[in-house]
Amino acid sequence: MEPVGQVDALEVPRFAGPSTFARLPRREDVPGFDVAVVGAPFDGGVSYRPGARFGPAAVRQGSRLIKPYNPALDVSPFAVRQVVDAGDIACNPFDIGGALAQVEAGLRELTGDGATAITIGGDHSIALPALRAAHALHGPVALVHFDAHLDTWDTYFGEPYTHGTPFRRAAEEGLLMRDASAHIGIRGPLYDPRDQVDDARFGFTIVHCAEIDDLGVRGAAERVRARVQDAPVYLSVDIDVLDPAFAPGTGTPESGGMTSRELLGMLRGLAGLNIVGADVVEVAPAYDHAEITSIAAAAVVYELLSLPAKDRRLP
Amino acid sequence: MEPVGQVDALEVPRFAGPSTFARLPRREDVPGFDVAVVGAPFDGGVSYRPGARFGPAAVRQGSRLIKPYNPALDVSPFAVRQVVDAGDIACNPFDIGGALAQVEAGLRELTGDGATAITIGGDHSIALPALRAAHALHGPVALVHFDAHLDTWDTYFGEPYTHGTPFRRAAEEGLLMRDASAHIGIRGPLYDPRDQVDDARFGFTIVHCAEIDDLGVRGAAERVRARVQDAPVYLSVDIDVLDPAFAPGTGTPESGGMTSRELLGMLRGLAGLNIVGADVVEVAPAYDHAEITSIAAAAVVYELLSLPAKDRRLP
Amino acid sequence: MEPVGQVDALEVPRFAGPSTFARLPRREDVPGFDVAVVGAPFDGGVSYRPGARFGPAAVRQGSRLIKPYNPALDVSPFAVRQVVDAGDIACNPFDIGGALAQVEAGLRELTGDGATAITIGGDHSIALPALRAAHALHGPVALVHFDAHLDTWDTYFGEPYTHGTPFRRAAEEGLLMRDASAHIGIRGPLYDPRDQVDDARFGFTIVHCAEIDDLGVRGAAERVRARVQDAPVYLSVDIDVLDPAFAPGTGTPESGGMTSRELLGMLRGLAGLNIVGADVVEVAPAYDHAEITSIAAAAVVYELLSLPAKDRRLP
Amino acid sequence: MEPVGQVDALEVPRFAGPSTFARLPRREDVPGFDVAVVGAPFDGGVSYRPGARFGPAAVRQGSRLIKPYNPALDVSPFAVRQVVDAGDIACNPFDIGGALAQVEAGLRELTGDGATAITIGGDHSIALPALRAAHALHGPVALVHFDAHLDTWDTYFGEPYTHGTPFRRAAEEGLLMRDASAHIGIRGPLYDPRDQVDDARFGFTIVHCAEIDDLGVRGAAERVRARVQDAPVYLSVDIDVLDPAFAPGTGTPESGGMTSRELLGMLRGLAGLNIVGADVVEVAPAYDHAEITSIAAAAVVYELLSLPAKDRRLP
Amino acid sequence: MEPVGQVDALEVPRFAGPSTFARLPRREDVPGFDVAVVGAPFDGGVSYRPGARFGPAAVRQGSRLIKPYNPALDVSPFAVRQVVDAGDIACNPFDIGGALAQVEAGLRELTGDGATAITIGGDHSIALPALRAAHALHGPVALVHFDAHLDTWDTYFGEPYTHGTPFRRAAEEGLLMRDASAHIGIRGPLYDPRDQVDDARFGFTIVHCAEIDDLGVRGAAERVRARVQDAPVYLSVDIDVLDPAFAPGTGTPESGGMTSRELLGMLRGLAGLNIVGADVVEVAPAYDHAEITSIAAAAVVYELLSLPAKDRRLP
Amino acid sequence: MEPVGQVDALEVPRFAGPSTFARLPRREDVPGFDVAVVGAPFDGGVSYRPGARFGPAAVRQGSRLIKPYNPALDVSPFAVRQVVDAGDIACNPFDIGGALAQVEAGLRELTGDGATAITIGGDHSIALPALRAAHALHGPVALVHFDAHLDTWDTYFGEPYTHGTPFRRAAEEGLLMRDASAHIGIRGPLYDPRDQVDDARFGFTIVHCAEIDDLGVRGAAERVRARVQDAPVYLSVDIDVLDPAFAPGTGTPESGGMTSRELLGMLRGLAGLNIVGADVVEVAPAYDHAEITSIAAAAVVYELLSLPAKDRRLP
Repeated sequence: MEPVGQVDALEVPRFAGPSTFARLPRREDVPGFDVAVVGAPFDGGVSYRPGARFGPAAVRQGSRLIKPYNPALDVSPFAVRQVVDAGDIACNPFDIGGALAQVEAGLRELTGDGATAITIGGDHSIALPALRAAHALHGPVALVHFDAHLDTWDTYFGEPYTHGTPFRRAAEEGLLMRDASAHIGIRGPLYDPRDQVDDARFGFTIVHCAEIDDLGVRGAAERVRARVQDAPVYLSVDIDVLDPAFAPGTGTPESGGMTSRELLGMLRGLAGLNIVGADVVEVAPAYDHAEITSIAAAAVVYELLSLPAKDRRLP
Repeated sequence: MEPVGQVDALEVPRFAGPSTFARLPRREDVPGFDVAVVGAPFDGGVSYRPGARFGPAAVRQGSRLIKPYNPALDVSPFAVRQVVDAGDIACNPFDIGGALAQVEAGLRELTGDGATAITIGGDHSIALPALRAAHALHGPVALVHFDAHLDTWDTYFGEPYTHGTPFRRAAEEGLLMRDASAHIGIRGPLYDPRDQVDDARFGFTIVHCAEIDDLGVRGAAERVRARVQDAPVYLSVDIDVLDPAFAPGTGTPESGGMTSRELLGMLRGLAGLNIVGADVVEVAPAYDHAEITSIAAAAVVYELLSLPAKDRRLP
Repeated sequence: MEPVGQVDALEVPRFAGPSTFARLPRREDVPGFDVAVVGAPFDGGVSYRPGARFGPAAVRQGSRLIKPYNPALDVSPFAVRQVVDAGDIACNPFDIGGALAQVEAGLRELTGDGATAITIGGDHSIALPALRAAHALHGPVALVHFDAHLDTWDTYFGEPYTHGTPFRRAAEEGLLMRDASAHIGIRGPLYDPRDQVDDARFGFTIVHCAEIDDLGVRGAAERVRARVQDAPVYLSVDIDVLDPAFAPGTGTPESGGMTSRELLGMLRGLAGLNIVGADVVEVAPAYDHAEITSIAAAAVVYELLSLPAKDRRLP
Repeated sequence: MEPVGQVDALEVPRFAGPSTFARLPRREDVPGFDVAVVGAPFDGGVSYRPGARFGPAAVRQGSRLIKPYNPALDVSPFAVRQVVDAGDIACNPFDIGGALAQVEAGLRELTGDGATAITIGGDHSIALPALRAAHALHGPVALVHFDAHLDTWDTYFGEPYTHGTPFRRAAEEGLLMRDASAHIGIRGPLYDPRDQVDDARFGFTIVHCAEIDDLGVRGAAERVRARVQDAPVYLSVDIDVLDPAFAPGTGTPESGGMTSRELLGMLRGLAGLNIVGADVVEVAPAYDHAEITSIAAAAVVYELLSLPAKDRRLP
Repeated sequence: MEPVGQVDALEVPRFAGPSTFARLPRREDVPGFDVAVVGAPFDGGVSYRPGARFGPAAVRQGSRLIKPYNPALDVSPFAVRQVVDAGDIACNPFDIGGALAQVEAGLRELTGDGATAITIGGDHSIALPALRAAHALHGPVALVHFDAHLDTWDTYFGEPYTHGTPFRRAAEEGLLMRDASAHIGIRGPLYDPRDQVDDARFGFTIVHCAEIDDLGVRGAAERVRARVQDAPVYLSVDIDVLDPAFAPGTGTPESGGMTSRELLGMLRGLAGLNIVGADVVEVAPAYDHAEITSIAAAAVVYELLSLPAKDRRLP
Repeated sequence: MEPVGQVDALEVPRFAGPSTFARLPRREDVPGFDVAVVGAPFDGGVSYRPGARFGPAAVRQGSRLIKPYNPALDVSPFAVRQVVDAGDIACNPFDIGGALAQVEAGLRELTGDGATAITIGGDHSIALPALRAAHALHGPVALVHFDAHLDTWDTYFGEPYTHGTPFRRAAEEGLLMRDASAHIGIRGPLYDPRDQVDDARFGFTIVHCAEIDDLGVRGAAERVRARVQDAPVYLSVDIDVLDPAFAPGTGTPESGGMTSRELLGMLRGLAGLNIVGADVVEVAPAYDHAEITSIAAAAVVYELLSLPAKDRRLP
């Protein structure tokens, strides 16, 4: 059976019709699915500007201009796999632990039959339950992490589960493969020189944002590929990896970031990786302007949908 | 069978979950319905700022805070009638005549089995097909029209179907009862003294915005009730009846308008009228700020849903 | 010869065409004129938020929706008098004294042949040279002053010519009639109880903003008329007389202000006064949203143009 | 010893200098104080838009235009009592219970020597610890509560301490006098008719926002005074009592609200009440425009500072 | 006779004075002209966000900072040729065909005596009549087209004349030279792999946006030059060729775009081409922030004015 | 004695606590200091958009996310030198000469005991008194000047002291070393070809913004280092050196600018220079969005603080 794709833009204008991601069918509208885009509207883990709870709705709105064929990767991602919008996982806004458990349960339920999930945050704390759910199916994974920040800090105000700590927790919980993970786009000040030492100890390598000047997009992607090889990959994109000019709508903006062209190019440079799960997080629309952040985030989701689809091109 | 109401806000946070109006069920999710909220995302008839094509999505987003019980009218509108969100009527953005025909066909289909429709514009040109659809079922109606502008002009640039002309066309087409209609909130300059003469000739009386100072909300509502009596009523709310302070997100803003408290109060003052159709139009979200216009428009829709429900209160 | 009026909105859409006030002819496009709208883009006298230098351009942009006939006063102001846009008076942005002299010279030149000028600021310091120019032709005038603030302070940082001091200077220079002037809309804190004592000494009476609750628009207008009687009137409107909700785009916003309906109603209530000059000041578009402030200011200018025209209605 | 007042605006421009409330001294800069303005930057209790954690900084910024003399109440509040800015109470953003305990401890410490505190939120959950601190000193108090919402709901998602529940908790904890409290400005939909029954059971009376049309500001204030009499009063102002036009920068905006003139007028109408504590909450600056919300909130704080000061006027 | 240039910024501040492009003379203010900047405020052909009807006014406002000498090309474009602002071509907002005919007639009239026109849109549909007008004078032209999108689609909703179709129509109408045209900056998804096949069939080559990483600005310009050679060139710049960070104020934003430095550099790299007409389109100011889009568009116009002027440098 | 550093972000959330730069101690809170960050909130010298008077407050707000350790330079700038926030220098907003004298006196007082000052503007006119103060201690300095504009013009409207003229005045006053200074980032039109001739005459070399494409960040930094050598350096950063996409909040935006990554990278490339004073100017927050301009400016200040600290790394 052929996948059900987007609402036809030549019949229903893009500014109208359903508000699902890329105007794809809802999960309940098709008999089964290969990939689910799902929202995790939780921002109880943020240390500065909140608002990523409105991220999933904003990224869906920012996805209305997406068309079916991705020429950069020469693939029609919605034609070769059934992609659905699985709505939002209801998360308790007042209980971090509870919310993370809800995200994990929601993702396990979604992916139990072999489907892949791409999660739209929410803040970065939701990457931990997503990694737990991925680990349950795939064992330890390589983490490819685009972000301005390491997110391997220990605790804030005594709280171990926040948007600055998911990957230390993930390492501690054994969810990550040793020495297979990478941060890309890191920049800005740290608390202490030891932050980087700790981070390396958890098995990460860093592609600093400033290094992209020399490596170029291709070179940087190559470094990631060399690191990851054929491990199962969880790919996590904190939208603040982009410079605030490209992503003002986020919670902890950091100057000196990537351009959207670099980010999209680098994602395309990862074609062939074995991506088993992914997220795009930290879109805080109250700080956005003219949807530029959510349009960029939607474009990231589109590339994430295209990458594995590439291996399944239509004959 | 009890109506299906809103998604429970104690289970799914209001910032999450479906993007239907007030998080009500979609039309296709329930077996039948009494009232449909439906979008008509067309703005090809505007003479100044376009953008009302994004109005339906914005008003839905602005409706997320709506709760089930309306204490001002002592009614739970979603409990006594099945209210659904019927999505958007697909309108051709490049063809005014075609789009109006699509709106009329869409509304006829929706209301064919006796249901009522509340249409979210779109620009005010969509009131004409809505009146045609109402007329098909109810014959000539009384028009209760909240607006800064008369909208009984003749043509712009030779075009007879625009957002400034629907009610002259409606009168010409015999859709309106004689001497039963009223404009409320009119203000600002006209082209010519004859504009008001023409308008009266089409059977309208005017409650000028400045008159509300003396009449008060109750007195103004009383004047409308006296005019309309027990005729079948089509109620049309151009959001620019509000002052630009209350509704910046609109296409032809006019200073000196109503407050949102006055508008909501006046609508409640119309309880008991025999409302057979209604619309809220001219929300142009690109000019809105912090959703104040779309929240006001959503509150108007909620009152429009509550007014007829009042006669059906739960025992 | 019949006056040349606005560009016809049925031929050139309102969003297009000249950027003159209300799309009226430029001064150099007609042989003579009765009334000139003129910009005084100077904001070197402000104590808090600057930006009123962009006020004239913004108010012109906000005037594009103005139509020829004013039904509230039953007059077509552009048909009974030749109204022109005289452009901007070039003011030195670095020299308060020089700029005020340029404004005075510009206004004297404009009004030398008996024409009236309505000046769009710029900050309130430009009211002083406007009063000087009016005095040169009419002798002492009654000042009708809409504002949140008294503007009769003495100096700031040793500077006698600022936006908080024009009316003390005017009184000292003998430009004002004794006991014929009024402030309307005053509210908010003062430096000292003596501020009001000083103010009364300069011959002002105050209609506090909160008094409008009791007086109503008509009563407040009546108090002003009783004060002014048949004196030649200079009418000065600081847009911050409106509440920040109605006029966010201004330099020293003060909560608890007038609505735009009250302001326009009060101006209409002054019909019959002998207005010899007027200004609208303190529109700072960088703080505006969706032009609501500049649209309100343009509506004020339109009433100011209509008031004296009312005595000259077409037969 | 004479109180230390504001930085002199004739020496340091208002846009410069310290960022304390009204440019008053910090607590640590004076030997003692009668009244402390203090921030409680916590928004972990919100159900919709977060961001009130940035409220205290925004209200301070919005207070820069405040001058020393309040003519409406004929008092110089900073001259008759030593008012200080006590900074922010550090609250754990990840732990509601912990944060509320920090607010309570902070306020107890501040007010232990007889000083009064005016707390700037933060979300409305901080009113509960503020009432606990007030109760510790004064026993049960009368609550005068300006808000669009009752805030006497029971739990959200099982959480008893949120911005929608503080006053039910307060009643349950015995912090409120029986039948002495009032909500003012209530409007909008509820969950259930029982919400109002429950609310009355907790000893509240309601002045619905729509009632102000008939009562007027004075009448509404009179109803509150009659209710409260000479009880010790805790006054809590949720900025969403204002219409979204006047306060877009808030978390759960509700159309049909009060104007800032009504709110300030009503507060002045409460002169003579025995106010022992107060707060202004729910200012979420990410949704504000041109500081209109924070300027209104700062004006509210200024009236709250002036009310008790009125009894201590300078001889 | 020496050309009349800009209003002198040392006499009239840049924030004041005429609102013509770069404060150049109006067409009617000089006896003749070599180049006309002219507005085509039509946006009836857009498929997503409308608003480009306000583009000409915005780009003029964004041009106020332009100075007379272009050091990058070492030319004073207003000194060597008489450049004027020819105002706006009045276009019927309700009739695509009519509006395009008006644009064509307007441009033919303007350029009939050998002058060149640079058109400010408006949406991209206006490029078709501009090409027709150019063709009438110059025969088939090479199209150099900066855009995120191909704009060689066939129809939308059955409409052949939209902002996504002008260049297919132009090819069909024989307005373009075979194999001499180029798109630059293309990116983002397409409907179908055939889109690119069709496009090539119409004689286009594509410089994909991502290719600029490797080619550099100079290399990309070189590819265009090699393609175009000495053909008469029509140069069309859709402002969405810039990344949304650089041009948020547009109708169909696409992430991963060019920087403004790349675009201006590439234009300068085209010096020497035989440019016979040009446009800058799709500036939608309602989505702009702080005029960054319209300032970029004005800078593009300035380079377009400088390019041919370079061959006429002052001796 | 160890320096007092920032408020601990693990105890007081970053959105709370003091509003000093990077939440560092105030000058009066520590016994002495090595470096002072100080505001010069004066914008009376601007020729286009005013508002930089609010720059110091905005940059402080934008600095709340700064952490103690700078990994790019491997230094903890607040640990090796005592850095304080010295508040704002009170400047007369109505008197350019007076204000500049106040800035000079303020900086002399601050730096008299050997401390360094980093000044946050304000407009660029404040660089002149900063250079005078630096000259008083160090004699003629090399100027390293990041800007879109040369700022070596002569006068505007007869005024010699404006934001476009500080460096001509500085050269005339002998404050600059001969042939040791550089402008970086220059772009956009000039008045006349002679502008560059004059500029060279004052001893400047120019790194045009477009040259960075070829030089790269490192190459451009190298050119500056070669120019400056071991001279005492005053480093002045006009935030408009960034493209308007990265710095919309400024007064004279110019397309085609630097990215924030390039600017920060270039500053780091200047490590080892003998910096004796610095400023960051022209942040106009009224035009900013989501603080992206002030966050970039704060990042620049952080690098300026780190550069000299690098030589004093902790053992």
